[in-house]
Parts: sequence; structure tokens; C-alpha cells
Amino acid sequence: MNPSEWFTEIVPVAQSAFSLKIKQKLHEEYSEFQHLEIYETEEFGNLMVIDGCTMVSTRDNFFYHEMMSHPALYTHPNPKRVWIIGGGDCGTLKEVLKHASVEHAVQIDIDERVTRLAEIYFPELCESNNDPRADLKFIDGIKWVKDAAPNSVDIIIVDSTDPVGPAEGLFSEAFYRDCFACLSENGMVVQQSESALYHLKLIGEMRNAMSNAGFGHLQTLFFPQCLYPSGWWSATIASKSDLSTFREQDSANKAFDTVFYNSDIHKASLAQPEFVKKVFSLK
Amino acid sequence: MNPSEWFTEIVPVAQSAFSLKIKQKLHEEYSEFQHLEIYETEEFGNLMVIDGCTMVSTRDNFFYHEMMSHPALYTHPNPKRVWIIGGGDCGTLKEVLKHASVEHAVQIDIDERVTRLAEIYFPELCESNNDPRADLKFIDGIKWVKDAAPNSVDIIIVDSTDPVGPAEGLFSEAFYRDCFACLSENGMVVQQSESALYHLKLIGEMRNAMSNAGFGHLQTLFFPQCLYPSGWWSATIASKSDLSTFREQDSANKAFDTVFYNSDIHKASLAQPEFVKKVFSLK
Repeated sequence: MNPSEWFTEIVPVAQSAFSLKIKQKLHEEYSEFQHLEIYETEEFGNLMVIDGCTMVSTRDNFFYHEMMSHPALYTHPNPKRVWIIGGGDCGTLKEVLKHASVEHAVQIDIDERVTRLAEIYFPELCESNNDPRADLKFIDGIKWVKDAAPNSVDIIIVDSTDPVGPAEGLFSEAFYRDCFACLSENGMVVQQSESALYHLKLIGEMRNAMSNAGFGHLQTLFFPQCLYPSGWWSATIASKSDLSTFREQDSANKAFDTVFYNSDIHKASLAQPEFVKKVFSLK
Repeated sequence: MNPSEWFTEIVPVAQSAFSLKIKQKLHEEYSEFQHLEIYETEEFGNLMVIDGCTMVSTRDNFFYHEMMSHPALYTHPNPKRVWIIGGGDCGTLKEVLKHASVEHAVQIDIDERVTRLAEIYFPELCESNNDPRADLKFIDGIKWVKDAAPNSVDIIIVDSTDPVGPAEGLFSEAFYRDCFACLSENGMVVQQSESALYHLKLIGEMRNAMSNAGFGHLQTLFFPQCLYPSGWWSATIASKSDLSTFREQDSANKAFDTVFYNSDIHKASLAQPEFVKKVFSLK
């Protein structure tokens, strides 16, 4: 393994690493906020790396983007207004806009360069950017939520990088309180919540912070994501109202294509492994 | 990343690699059949490597061993006689023996050295080796099955390495025919079937071979397995009788501990992703 031919991300907490063999580096820049790299890989298509962490690849992004959007949108009774905090690669936005009920989807990523690079290197993720319901803003998502009026939004999807650097504030109780304040009656937040094998304590802390911020209903979903540490990822939904059911019939009859998600996968993602149940039930 | 401090497995089909940082190499030998290495890792406990491929780690083996055994044993109406072909680390044997219905569990691994090393470096997996119901044989599993009398066994678990080298014959129609011939009325084979992200064609071929060998009912289960290529693994069950239900109440009331498996996880593992359904339904 010649290190110059591979992109490798080391995960310090697990002393593990995942690597993809690269054909070439397509782009590199330091934006105002982050170090951005784009590689062409041998077998994963294009790869975006932010501050040394793999963010998205052509080959396997569907797991993450589908599971960050469809479970929440098929759980909310009638999602019309959706905000995506982060999500600059536009893949989550594309999935959200597949739902006919959505009237307005705002993507708020602090770093416009992520989107400009996605338009070039991941055009398939940006296919819906010109949808009249789409609204792309390049401002601070934390401030956007803080300044929002009550009853402004039905679902907030926090599609962020890891809880270090620019995204750290997105994992705090203060941020969840601001979300709670601007969400509508059945409103919910869904946030990527790392790996249960590597970061179980963090998931527990996130759930506590969401609960302390006023959300009475929590749900952590599990799904594969080859590119991310341990290959097994999660998202956590915090809702103002009951999460024990979802619009299963609507999901089973969805009028759009997906690669991973369907109503069976939705239910499957809610199953809690034994070791996870033990930790979450302790709180 | 200093290569001398890491164990790395490259997956040629995906041009990806997974690495674990090592403290030291504990053992290395060339057995009659394979190249065996044992490492002490920084965060994954001990690691067994066979012919350059990660086989088992202290930290994450529970996913695989539990999912190779409990779904099949809770699907069969009354599993009394179980054979494990391969499985020399004894982790699957340990899970199988947790079932009170099991009267005789035979582990047939061609390479005795794997078990002798597991006894030293993975003692927790070998805890049940002295169970009076356990029977460890170090012979050729393919021949064992070929020579077996009809109605000899209820469940055959094929806990093998990848379909190259000594395990290649375990993925063939001829082997499945021999399994069919010695299985009892409701008998089933369960076999590790690689990653749906990396090896979907192989899973399809395996299912075809099982079907051609006479098994009328197939089921592919999905579960996380950090150590294995893509971090997302599968097992395929081929049965003589219906697989549409399992002993869910027995599973929900199981009298033993697991780390990952429970009845919800069992059901969840059966959910077929959209892209998988499309491939399997083509046949």
C-alpha cells in the first residue's frame, strides 16, 4: 500500500482507519471555514474530504442522504417546511424535495464553497437545486435558527460534520432549545449522530441535550455507511410529538425512487441492539 | 500513518482498505492450510488475521457470531443437532450452545491451529468448548458433509473464510446438494455471504446455487460488521421449509445474554434494501 496512492482517514477514538485508492486529486482549497479536497477514487467515484474527514462519495452517499431525510419526513404527519442545517453537498436537499408535501426547503450551509464544489464534482446530488421550492443560503445555521420566529418550520435536518470545528455548536442543548422554539406543533429535529460502536457516549449525551431542550420523544436510527467510521452510522430524531408510528402506507407507496430506503428498511432502522438499549435505558 | 504500526487489509474489488493500529504482533505461523497472525491492537483488543484478511477481533466479533447463529436457530422449529463448518475461533459454537434445545453441536474446522490460537488469544470465545454437547473436529468439512447420512443434522452453519483458498468449495452447488441430502425435514444451511455493497453478484450466485441444490426457501440477512469489507455484512439462509416466520416469542424471551441480537434486530436484519430487492427479484 503506497500511501501516496490512497486517501486515508484515521479515527483517533478507535485507532482505526478507512482508505480509498485514488486515481487523482481533482481539487484542493482552504475556504474561509475549512480545508476542502476532492479526489477521484478507483472504485467509489468522486470523494469529498473536509478537514481530513471523508464526507461524501459518489458510490455510497445514498445510505446517508436517504436515511437523514425519509424516516423523518415519513414520520411527520404533513411536512411542508424543511430546513437543512449544513448539507452543502445538496444530497439531503434532493431527497427532501422528492416529497410532494414539501413546499419550501431551505439549505443553510455556512460554507458556500462546499456547494460550488458539489455542483462540479457531484452534479447528481445537485439535480434539485433549481427546484422552485429549494432555497440555498450560505450563512451561519446556528444564528439562523436562533433568530427564527416561532412556528417557522416543520422539520430541521442537521446534516453536519463531526462535533468539532464549525459544527460543534450544532450538538449543544442551546441549539436544540432554539430549534424547539421555532418548530411547529409536531416539529422535529433529525441529526446525524455518529457510530454506536465508536461514539455511544456522544449519542447518549446528544439525546440528553435534546431531552433537556424540551423534546419529549427521541428515536435513534441505525444504518450502514461504509465511508464513515466503523461503517455503521446513526441519526437521532427529537420530536415534540409521538414517534411510535410513521406513515407506513405512504412510505410503502412512495412515488419516487430510492436506492436503500423503503418502508421495511425504515422499520428496520429503528431496531435497538441490546448494548444500545442498555445504555439508553440507564438515563 | 506509519505502516509498520498498523495492520491493513486491502479489499481489491472495492480498492478500499481497513486498518487497525497495533500494539504488537503476538503470534505468526504458517499452518498446514493458512497463514495465521495474531495482533494486539490499540482499541479492538486482539485481532486474528488469516491469509491477510481480518477474521475476528475481541471488540466487534459479537455482531457476526450472534447473527450467524441466533436468526437460524430461532427460525428452525426445534434445532437439536447443529454443525458448524469452519468457525475455528469457536465464537459461533458458543452462541449456538446458548440454545437449550441444542443437544449436539459439532464444529468442523479443517485447521486445528485456528482453535488452538483462539483458546490462547480469544478465551472468551472458547468458554463453551468443554460443554458436554460440544464436539470439535479438525477435518475437512466438505468431506464430512458429503459422507453424512440422511437426516443427520438440523442446521448447518457455514462460518467460513472468503470464497477463495480452502473455503472455495463451501460456496458451490455441489456442497449445498450434500447439505440438502443430510439435513432433516425442516433443515437449513446458513452461510456468511459477504457485503451487499461490494459483493452483490456473489450473493446472487450463492442464492442461485442454493436454489438449484433443492432449497425452496432463501433469506439474506444484513448486519453491521466493522471489521469486514464495507462494514456491512450478510448471511444467507437456505431452508427446506418456509422462512416467512420465526419463533419470535422464544426470541423475545431468550434466557441468555447477547450484545447485538434481540427479536427486533432479528426482524430488522430481514429488511431488504431497494437495490438488493431489484437484483434478487431478477432471478
